[in-house]
Amino acid sequence: MDLHALQTRLRGFAAERNWESYLNPKNLAMALTVEAAELQEIFQWLTPEEAADIASKPEAHQHLGEEVADVLMYLVQLADRSGIDLEAAVERKLLLNARKYPPPPQA
Amino acid sequence: MDLHALQTRLRGFAAERNWESYLNPKNLAMALTVEAAELQEIFQWLTPEEAADIASKPEAHQHLGEEVADVLMYLVQLADRSGIDLEAAVERKLLLNARKYPPPPQA
Amino acid sequence: MDLHALQTRLRGFAAERNWESYLNPKNLAMALTVEAAELQEIFQWLTPEEAADIASKPEAHQHLGEEVADVLMYLVQLADRSGIDLEAAVERKLLLNARKYPPPPQA
Amino acid sequence: MDLHALQTRLRGFAAERNWESYLNPKNLAMALTVEAAELQEIFQWLTPEEAADIASKPEAHQHLGEEVADVLMYLVQLADRSGIDLEAAVERKLLLNARKYPPPPQA
Repeated sequence: MDLHALQTRLRGFAAERNWESYLNPKNLAMALTVEAAELQEIFQWLTPEEAADIASKPEAHQHLGEEVADVLMYLVQLADRSGIDLEAAVERKLLLNARKYPPPPQA
Repeated sequence: MDLHALQTRLRGFAAERNWESYLNPKNLAMALTVEAAELQEIFQWLTPEEAADIASKPEAHQHLGEEVADVLMYLVQLADRSGIDLEAAVERKLLLNARKYPPPPQA
Repeated sequence: MDLHALQTRLRGFAAERNWESYLNPKNLAMALTVEAAELQEIFQWLTPEEAADIASKPEAHQHLGEEVADVLMYLVQLADRSGIDLEAAVERKLLLNARKYPPPPQA
Repeated sequence: MDLHALQTRLRGFAAERNWESYLNPKNLAMALTVEAAELQEIFQWLTPEEAADIASKPEAHQHLGEEVADVLMYLVQLADRSGIDLEAAVERKLLLNARKYPPPPQA
């Protein structure tokens, strides 16, 4: 998926609806957490085993897809409106994680 | 950014560290929300105006990039391990949103 | 409000409905965050000034009261089922905060 | 625990440190969710069984107590600054819940 193209589409969507003034990074961060929590709610009373099997429940799985999309769409808007290059941010964090959690020695 | 390639890299990263058993969708959803909240924490005491200017504060901006990356990396792992096609999910949600929020009539 | 009495009432409510097996601390922590996010959602597109004036909007204010109650009820259940004495925890944290943030010198 | 007395103490604590301007309901709602997520983080990689046994791990249990206290302190401040009577809100929600989830018939 081309995240830059998605950012451009979401800019257009917001501009057409005069939502620009709401979409500052503080509000977008709040909306991101709210969507993450809505996603989490799908799993809250499930056992880990039931959660791992979510793809077998069509209704819950479709709902999950909607929440995943909402999280991604708020995240790319937040990055767009706070000057974060998503790809560079991920590459940098992967390096930090590799340093923080070195792989265990192989037998 | 190629999100499928990122999913493959994160699978390898987890497998090398024997983290597989932790990464069920329930736990990943929890981790996603925790990272979203850490991102949100950067903005919680800022005014909307200060938040919009986050790119001018190098330390906070770098921190923000790390949290953005963490959210994206947990999201793609969650999608991967619960059978969600990210691109299809976003296209479907864009359609739903366009229907739910029709653009206002142009003057 | 007597939080111990509230814990007892919520234990009875759960027992009558055979909800016991769901109410482990992990699930309760998830439900707590979900309710906090639902509360936060009320404020996400408001300016700080509009948020401060929430009591003047009867419908939003009533909704806020419901979310506040949900957060408190999950919090006391979580404390109950993980052996946390709420009053002792608050007294201890007030001391830690007073040490961490000493009051500024008075003129 | 007397939640009104706690509200008064937290008002004094904030006033002494000139924090008043930060403590509008929008910011307090953000802080509440952040603390709930920090609490949740304690449980995110634990099995439900390990989570239920948290009281046996002194360090994690003490940490949990701190996060529980943080959530409660932000919640009572939020209620205080948005005109919510905590006790009335809980009584009303208990009634709504009893109506929404009637107890199953006894054998």
